[in-house]
Amino acid sequence: MKILRINTRTKSFKFEELGDLAGLGGRALTSRVVNKEVPANCHPLSAENKLIFAAGVLAPTNAANSGRVSVGAKSPLTGGIKESNSGGQFAHTLPKLDLLAVILEDKPEAGSPMQEIFISADKVVFKDSAVVGMRNYAAQEKLLSAYGDKSVTALIGPAGEQCLCAATIQFSDPEGLPSRSAGRGGLGAVMGSKGVKAIILDGEANAKTVYGNEELFKEARKEWVDVLRTHPVTSQGLPGFGTAVLVNVINEAGALPTKNFRMGKFDGAEKISGETLAANIEKRGGKTKHGCHTGCVIQCSQVYHGKDGKYLTTGFEYETIWGFGANLLIDNLDDIAQMDRTCDEIGMDTIEMANTMAMAMEGGVLAWGDSKGVLAELDKVGSKDPLGRIYGNGTSYTAKAFGVDRIPVVKNQALPAYDPRAVKGVGVTYATTPMGADHTAGYGVCQNVLKVGGDVDGHKNEGNIELSKNLQIATAAVDSLGLCLFVAFAILDDARGVPCMAKLITGLTGKEMSVDEMMGIGVNCLKDELDFNKRAGFTDEDDQLPRFFREELLAPHNVGWGYSTEELQAAKV
Amino acid sequence: MKILRINTRTKSFKFEELGDLAGLGGRALTSRVVNKEVPANCHPLSAENKLIFAAGVLAPTNAANSGRVSVGAKSPLTGGIKESNSGGQFAHTLPKLDLLAVILEDKPEAGSPMQEIFISADKVVFKDSAVVGMRNYAAQEKLLSAYGDKSVTALIGPAGEQCLCAATIQFSDPEGLPSRSAGRGGLGAVMGSKGVKAIILDGEANAKTVYGNEELFKEARKEWVDVLRTHPVTSQGLPGFGTAVLVNVINEAGALPTKNFRMGKFDGAEKISGETLAANIEKRGGKTKHGCHTGCVIQCSQVYHGKDGKYLTTGFEYETIWGFGANLLIDNLDDIAQMDRTCDEIGMDTIEMANTMAMAMEGGVLAWGDSKGVLAELDKVGSKDPLGRIYGNGTSYTAKAFGVDRIPVVKNQALPAYDPRAVKGVGVTYATTPMGADHTAGYGVCQNVLKVGGDVDGHKNEGNIELSKNLQIATAAVDSLGLCLFVAFAILDDARGVPCMAKLITGLTGKEMSVDEMMGIGVNCLKDELDFNKRAGFTDEDDQLPRFFREELLAPHNVGWGYSTEELQAAKV
Repeated sequence: MKILRINTRTKSFKFEELGDLAGLGGRALTSRVVNKEVPANCHPLSAENKLIFAAGVLAPTNAANSGRVSVGAKSPLTGGIKESNSGGQFAHTLPKLDLLAVILEDKPEAGSPMQEIFISADKVVFKDSAVVGMRNYAAQEKLLSAYGDKSVTALIGPAGEQCLCAATIQFSDPEGLPSRSAGRGGLGAVMGSKGVKAIILDGEANAKTVYGNEELFKEARKEWVDVLRTHPVTSQGLPGFGTAVLVNVINEAGALPTKNFRMGKFDGAEKISGETLAANIEKRGGKTKHGCHTGCVIQCSQVYHGKDGKYLTTGFEYETIWGFGANLLIDNLDDIAQMDRTCDEIGMDTIEMANTMAMAMEGGVLAWGDSKGVLAELDKVGSKDPLGRIYGNGTSYTAKAFGVDRIPVVKNQALPAYDPRAVKGVGVTYATTPMGADHTAGYGVCQNVLKVGGDVDGHKNEGNIELSKNLQIATAAVDSLGLCLFVAFAILDDARGVPCMAKLITGLTGKEMSVDEMMGIGVNCLKDELDFNKRAGFTDEDDQLPRFFREELLAPHNVGWGYSTEELQAAKV
Repeated sequence: MKILRINTRTKSFKFEELGDLAGLGGRALTSRVVNKEVPANCHPLSAENKLIFAAGVLAPTNAANSGRVSVGAKSPLTGGIKESNSGGQFAHTLPKLDLLAVILEDKPEAGSPMQEIFISADKVVFKDSAVVGMRNYAAQEKLLSAYGDKSVTALIGPAGEQCLCAATIQFSDPEGLPSRSAGRGGLGAVMGSKGVKAIILDGEANAKTVYGNEELFKEARKEWVDVLRTHPVTSQGLPGFGTAVLVNVINEAGALPTKNFRMGKFDGAEKISGETLAANIEKRGGKTKHGCHTGCVIQCSQVYHGKDGKYLTTGFEYETIWGFGANLLIDNLDDIAQMDRTCDEIGMDTIEMANTMAMAMEGGVLAWGDSKGVLAELDKVGSKDPLGRIYGNGTSYTAKAFGVDRIPVVKNQALPAYDPRAVKGVGVTYATTPMGADHTAGYGVCQNVLKVGGDVDGHKNEGNIELSKNLQIATAAVDSLGLCLFVAFAILDDARGVPCMAKLITGLTGKEMSVDEMMGIGVNCLKDELDFNKRAGFTDEDDQLPRFFREELLAPHNVGWGYSTEELQAAKV
């Protein structure tokens, strides 16, 4: 396996041996490259930043749920290191090109035409892009007809072209739709700054994976599927209702942030719940069980149709429904589905944009609950309307435009769908992960609410710092292997899980991988990230929630946030 | 003398004894209050921030040039502590009300009508403002007709009402025009967030100053005038051409930042020079010698008329002319004068807005040199046009809107009119002052270019860190006494100067003030500021210029910037 480095200014490329990067993959690889090669104090949109697409350690295999892709760079949103994780076909296709990672470097002269970059087994072809300015679904259709239906893409929408901080990179899913997002941290803007509209991987490539111990791998692979298929969350909850199953669960727990984190319960929760979503699909067509990449046995995604029975969106997540729903006092699920689609089309992070719309409501630009208004405002991003440039730069940027001081961000990244006061395990993660507020970096919701993998009271300080720290390490390992984070539900409860992950690696490489060594990948990954952020100017003061969480109690349980910044440091490796 | 605290939410007030603040004034007082009373991690627009207007230690006297006012708060632009210094009549009027400082606290409910606050010797009257939405000249006229011609005002324009980060607070000058700005750091936004459109001081008040040793004071005062009147810069250069005398001087030195800091010389310099400005005044009427406050013997301000012979602007500074001129490749002095007027009208910092327009040019929104375009864009700030909200939030904010990565800011504040590579004495100040890039915090231009108060090569590293540190201390002392910074030109060369300042204080208070003790006020002031910034999350990494200054050499002298971040720390107290 090789690393492909592409210089976006000179339009040259080279295939490199892995060298020091051997043994790494996914997030561990992207964070290592960023930490070693990107000047911590460079501007994220400058030539000095690099954009790394990496497959996980297990991506060359057909182990279940091993196809997540990691994208890394210095983030234009947070100013810190960023790994943004996505489904789609990209990670499983890279090894078929004998590639572990692709790195975009340098930056073209201002005014250069944006490029499409086609990558096949032995060559890289640059072409002035024919889809500049287009939204993602239409652009993708045109790309597939130009490069072949089997092509696998990473592309940016108009938001990325404008280098806006909430811009995503969209990856094509098994159906070829550009529906999977490396959403957080504005990495679409980095791709835009490098003048790259799309990367197209040759879908015909088929390099074979060489296993070090194929027998052992096959054995581990079977056990791995069994682990995932026997846990109730990964075998029933997620496939049945998707992540939206959480709407009612988190609302019942009093932890569903409502009206810009003012309350923990939303009257309209039922109308936007996973149950309502599933009922709509039953009525209208669509699909409840759907995988974001081939080899997924959890199938938490779905295909959602509108009232007219026509395809509307896919990968319609709990966090999106919360953000555009409860947090904006919107209870119209179809409008929220359209918001999700619009974000995929323009290439915008739904969590960032939902919080951004909350800022527009705080600032009096929109009325609370005005779903048609939100649709109209979202539509402006990526257009010539300067309001779109405000919104597209995210939550704190929009707050500044309208003089709003109630801003739910950590390290400038907007908070996700769990109130940190009522789910302190994830609250500690928001505060301390190098990523900025990010639930996927250490999902304490498991132990605090779902009671999976343990039982820690989410209302109390005790135990949650240690919980978050351990989850952050395990997550960094999972992200580095290229596994879907949802395997965590199963491996936290099934003693076979973690050793099985190590066994999968041993089977692939033929070199014994211990559980400790595997967790060490996670620890070292976090160390790279913390080191980068420190050199980029972050201090302990940045590891804290905004002051309003510390001053207001959250109804209905009247829970506050009492951690001092000093205490929170213990959650870092 | 008392402190007046005004609660902007409850509309209550109290007159307090000085207590621990006794002996302080100006910047030392505002920075002490911010450091002691404002949570370092609060949002600058939140109820927890405070806005402090302080007269200097010598403001109760008629010592020459003792009428500068200090405004302090946590800055919405930098996120750090801010003292913004202005001329105008405010500082000399406060003591006539027996006040040393006014502190605005808390914040009204959203949607509350903006207030005018009238302060007389014993009472404070709140009134729903009749000038909301108005630009400053018209608003001021209406305020004077309501409160009397002798009233002295501090007011914000539409930019401040919208809480934008480049918003100034405008102070009325001896003619009653709202022409003097506390420009830097967006303190107008803090005033706007507190719902205060204008503060009006009773112009009839006349509390008498009690001197501890009036004989000594009178003697010192005479000497002080002599010091200022015998130095060539304060007696000839500045009165003759205003600060614009520097255009040709700095251009000749190859240090006039041109086209967003790409070159150090501007072909059109002559057309926008102090000499041209003075010639226009001679032709059209206006005034070359003008003071920003009563008691000024330097008279560096001027009154500038347009081609039609009618009043256009006053306080038309070198930095404004540079920023809208050379740095944007504009050589039309009358258009630049109109830009200055527009900034005063809307209430915007000219340095920040000039750099902001450079970002619009970098981003392709405007063509380089398009002065009419700049006028049209500036006009949008404070209006409903969302572009105005982008521009009004300043340089780095505008850069982000347009994907620009060549951003001349330190601590998010835009650089002033001296290229730091060619004038390293002021470059070190830009990098290390707690204020963000600010030439007035330690004006190494004196020794590097003007050869006043010493001779240190501005192209070489040697000597400039020590120079900047000493200037930063002296400046903090000068700002705390309420003296105009331009007295520095004289006191650096005249051995009588510094002891005379101490003698003025001794004469006023009757208690012996040593030179060391007086400089200690400066040191302690800087310590307060550095302490606040550290607690607000600033690190050594923030004490550095943007990377492009470190990577590009500046023509014509091909000088670079070689200081490491570690070396620069030596410039801090």
